[in-house]
Amino acid sequence: MSKFNFEILGKDVKSDARAGVIHTVHGDIKTPSFVPVGTQATVKSMSNEDLQEIGVQVFFVNTYHLYLRPGLEAIEKGNGLHSFIGWGKPLMTDSAGFQIFSLGDVNRQRKLCLQGDPLEIPLVKISEEGVKFRSHLDGSGHLFTPEKSIEVQRILGADIMIAFDECCYYPATHDYAKKAMERTHRWALRCLAAKSKLQGKLSERQTLYGVVQGGVFEDLRRQSAKYISSLPFPGIAIGGVAVGESKKEMKDVLDWVVPLLPEEKTRHLLGVGEIDDIFTLVEKGIDSFDCVMPTRLGRMGHLLVRKVENREWKLDITKAMYASDKRPIDENCDCFVCRNYNRGYINHLFRAKELLAYRLCTFHNLFFLENLMREIRTAIKEEKLDQVKKKWLQ
Amino acid sequence: MSKFNFEILGKDVKSDARAGVIHTVHGDIKTPSFVPVGTQATVKSMSNEDLQEIGVQVFFVNTYHLYLRPGLEAIEKGNGLHSFIGWGKPLMTDSAGFQIFSLGDVNRQRKLCLQGDPLEIPLVKISEEGVKFRSHLDGSGHLFTPEKSIEVQRILGADIMIAFDECCYYPATHDYAKKAMERTHRWALRCLAAKSKLQGKLSERQTLYGVVQGGVFEDLRRQSAKYISSLPFPGIAIGGVAVGESKKEMKDVLDWVVPLLPEEKTRHLLGVGEIDDIFTLVEKGIDSFDCVMPTRLGRMGHLLVRKVENREWKLDITKAMYASDKRPIDENCDCFVCRNYNRGYINHLFRAKELLAYRLCTFHNLFFLENLMREIRTAIKEEKLDQVKKKWLQ
Repeated sequence: MSKFNFEILGKDVKSDARAGVIHTVHGDIKTPSFVPVGTQATVKSMSNEDLQEIGVQVFFVNTYHLYLRPGLEAIEKGNGLHSFIGWGKPLMTDSAGFQIFSLGDVNRQRKLCLQGDPLEIPLVKISEEGVKFRSHLDGSGHLFTPEKSIEVQRILGADIMIAFDECCYYPATHDYAKKAMERTHRWALRCLAAKSKLQGKLSERQTLYGVVQGGVFEDLRRQSAKYISSLPFPGIAIGGVAVGESKKEMKDVLDWVVPLLPEEKTRHLLGVGEIDDIFTLVEKGIDSFDCVMPTRLGRMGHLLVRKVENREWKLDITKAMYASDKRPIDENCDCFVCRNYNRGYINHLFRAKELLAYRLCTFHNLFFLENLMREIRTAIKEEKLDQVKKKWLQ
Repeated sequence: MSKFNFEILGKDVKSDARAGVIHTVHGDIKTPSFVPVGTQATVKSMSNEDLQEIGVQVFFVNTYHLYLRPGLEAIEKGNGLHSFIGWGKPLMTDSAGFQIFSLGDVNRQRKLCLQGDPLEIPLVKISEEGVKFRSHLDGSGHLFTPEKSIEVQRILGADIMIAFDECCYYPATHDYAKKAMERTHRWALRCLAAKSKLQGKLSERQTLYGVVQGGVFEDLRRQSAKYISSLPFPGIAIGGVAVGESKKEMKDVLDWVVPLLPEEKTRHLLGVGEIDDIFTLVEKGIDSFDCVMPTRLGRMGHLLVRKVENREWKLDITKAMYASDKRPIDENCDCFVCRNYNRGYINHLFRAKELLAYRLCTFHNLFFLENLMREIRTAIKEEKLDQVKKKWLQ
């Protein structure tokens, strides 16, 4: 089986969009690719069979959550995540940094960031060594360092791992964003060193992505993009763009960062993927992105539908107006939910808080997004991205 | 499409068990058949596709719940339950009587039954006309009568309907059990009259089962069995045997009632189906039975497994001992859950309260039971029921 390898198969003529394929030992990921989030080693309400039927190529698992529950012992005895889950396709794990940092009180964190001092946060304490935190489950104390993050991700065994970083909350001062970025850079070196020390143990099958930080500051983002690109990471993740910025600021960050990234390295955008972001990030040259949006919306009954007749992307199936509606969620959709179930019944399932509601709506939203991504990939290769974008965004 | 019709295809030599087939316009139900319960028009956590894969032939919907939510308007506009749910196979509905009666405080009800006066129950008031009750959802007041029950079940449109009865709680005095039985008999006549008055509207596709009551009293049960059998019901349901009696008393009721039922009428046992009851009720000559057991147990993580090495039928997957267990739930099971998932992962899903846990375990339990029923049907036709029973019960 071949190791990690990225091929570019086509480029858009009017934007920086590119279509390609990431080869991993667990199979290929065609890009641009949406990566659903399965926080606790399950994309909420979906079976592996559901994900395969949808065409999901890879999903994202949160290291922090698995480290605490079921814990490393169960995963290690289960021969790693793929075998534990029973999922034979690619997986990604994060470094646990963002999740740990999020444990702190967000408002207090932001205030401290603005004051330039993020070091004292309830539940979380950041130092050069790493991050001390208390479990949200039982209050037990833990220390995560770059070395620990790599060790934990090695045990999880995902195809793509993320380097341990310090995610800077928005808004933050330039001073704090700079400190966090610099620490992220030092931690990047420690992650690479930890990975090479583990070489014997660490399967060559696992790839490590570096993380670009720098808040919403052009100088810092450029500096981080250049530095992280210079290190031997085969892929680059862009962090800190899903913590409260406006859509405009996300675009700015991509404008500053992506042109400085080497073409041959894959580019992953962490935590972004609202439906109206997708064409933007694809056109800026992003290859993959993870987001909880389609699954979380699905569990709330907010369904993705094509924007027709000035309708928004989202249809709230829990509204009383759908109680007797015999139409499928989206008449243009071929998913099994739209082929076999009507809006009235799904409305009833939500009102009655029936488990089936969450599954049907998650399935539809993921199918909708995968379908959009397939169309985008084909469009890039056929040099028709602008037409497809026009069709979708009208 | 042919109307309701029951054929007996084989009889056991050593017991009263029989194998047959119930024909309905929505397809056949091979008997003996287990009927899963989908209280709110969904077998909790199962899609129609799941039920079909399992081989579920028919499921049971609670009239009381659907009457209150989504309400008759949504179902009527949706062209009846089959179309509303998107389920093309047979369905059963109950009369709503048992559910309404259950609204009252059970302990108080029992006390009143023992005193011989069940007429004053919080939320519920029974009279000759019918039952007044308050919705458990919004406290609104409603009156269900035999005529109303038939009208509501007509709108729901299930293939098999149940006559409106007064279910007598256990333990009750002979006096109260007699009064409740006599009322059930008078209500049976009113249900039949209501059905024939509606003949124009009421689809000939729907069949009405009469209900035998009489508590745990031999004289009453025999009287009820004879009387209900004498009325023009094509099928007989046996009620009031899932409200607290011992297994011994359930057997007694079947011993008194079933021999008095005409062979050509189908026999449904209401609300019974613990795994160790199944051989008993089949041997007593029951054709179908509904029970929430396998689905409810599944959602609690109690999984049905073959009784090997003195193990009980149930395996509690939430126990810590399964956290690193790489085996499937049941090594002898061919369901997709046992083929693709291990105990350690399912244990994790339960501990993390992930939605997938409930679906996987419900699927397995239903598959397990359907498989058992298939084996029992074949065994009856091949005159091997005692061997199969021995194998299963060891």
